Amino acid sequence: MPKAVVLLSGGLDSATVLALAVRQGYACHALSVDYGQRHRAELQAAARVARALGAQEHKTVGIDLSAFGGSALTDANIAVPTQGVQKDGIPVTYVPARNTIMLSLGLAWAEVLGAQDLFFGANAVDYSGYPDCRPEYMRAFERLANLATKAAVEGRRLALHTPIIAMSKAQIIEQGVKLGVDYGLTVSCYQADGQGRACGACDSCRLRRAGFKAAGVADPTRYFSAPR
Amino acid sequence: MPKAVVLLSGGLDSATVLALAVRQGYACHALSVDYGQRHRAELQAAARVARALGAQEHKTVGIDLSAFGGSALTDANIAVPTQGVQKDGIPVTYVPARNTIMLSLGLAWAEVLGAQDLFFGANAVDYSGYPDCRPEYMRAFERLANLATKAAVEGRRLALHTPIIAMSKAQIIEQGVKLGVDYGLTVSCYQADGQGRACGACDSCRLRRAGFKAAGVADPTRYFSAPR
Repeated sequence: MPKAVVLLSGGLDSATVLALAVRQGYACHALSVDYGQRHRAELQAAARVARALGAQEHKTVGIDLSAFGGSALTDANIAVPTQGVQKDGIPVTYVPARNTIMLSLGLAWAEVLGAQDLFFGANAVDYSGYPDCRPEYMRAFERLANLATKAAVEGRRLALHTPIIAMSKAQIIEQGVKLGVDYGLTVSCYQADGQGRACGACDSCRLRRAGFKAAGVADPTRYFSAPR
Repeated sequence: MPKAVVLLSGGLDSATVLALAVRQGYACHALSVDYGQRHRAELQAAARVARALGAQEHKTVGIDLSAFGGSALTDANIAVPTQGVQKDGIPVTYVPARNTIMLSLGLAWAEVLGAQDLFFGANAVDYSGYPDCRPEYMRAFERLANLATKAAVEGRRLALHTPIIAMSKAQIIEQGVKLGVDYGLTVSCYQADGQGRACGACDSCRLRRAGFKAAGVADPTRYFSAPR
């Protein structure tokens, strides 16, 4: 069974990607990154999701991006917006270089494991404002990865898989439901509480809620206040 | 004064790069990465070097790469070689994806600071066995960086500077001596002791010692045992 590293945030998207990778026959090594995000409940959700979907193991690597600040997700001085999904420009919830850092960590673990497949739940549809969610960015990372490592130099190329990059939230949910993902285990909210309950008001909650509605799937999310 | 992020390990190479960046007129923000390396004294050296060379500030970001293992520099079960510099293949002191991770962190801080210049002391001459020290790798990272960030999307491109990539160790030392670098503050040894004294036997000590000899500069390194 070929090994794969799967980046797992604990949210809806990466849970679906893990289910896809397991279904494709990979022995999945799930990696979460504790980058100082406000929404700590996401990391606990990642551990539950990894277990439920049959990952071989789950590691969380800590790195303190709040030292740099600059994002509503890591800087307590920047408020998470709750006034509706931003239509233009790059959201304040964008974390500088986050995907580059997370993919680098995935690359490191893949090299140690001897895995040649790295799965990442980036999505360019709902998050078109995040530069590091675009397909051209993913191709550039794959190119870098294949110059970066001992494995690549020795001919064992790395493939970066982004199976949901072009899907809508509803399509992701439909895919996951077919694969038996229990979305009640996942946490997407940018400001989830200690029990993993969602605010119902941030961009991430709105996109998720709209996705369940569009997919015709009952929303299993637990909210700490009535969703707007 | 334009801002630059300078990756600073505390060793000889990156100290020289910081001195070059300061001389070129950049306001330098020095970044060290605590990746679980055995040679902890290097990080203390980085703080001394940043101060001595006039960096604006110095940050150390912690990330535990020892969770992955796979390198003599982070895995206590793999011995640091002391039998002379390895001639072929990739050394066991290679840390998987280390440079990709460190450059990603530099990119993150550069974006938060609004800096468009990132300096990195990679060297392809003495470390030709490390895939992520090659010029083609550096070009691929720069390309990725300019797809990754909000700044790049908005037209503020990032330049990755690797001014010593093609220099021999002796040339680096000659350059640094001209710029007034006090190499007695730096620590290069892979297994330096708590006081920053070097073993005199690992690859890094041998390359450094040979560099001082070739440059005709007295070696200011403090050793805990007689160098071999």
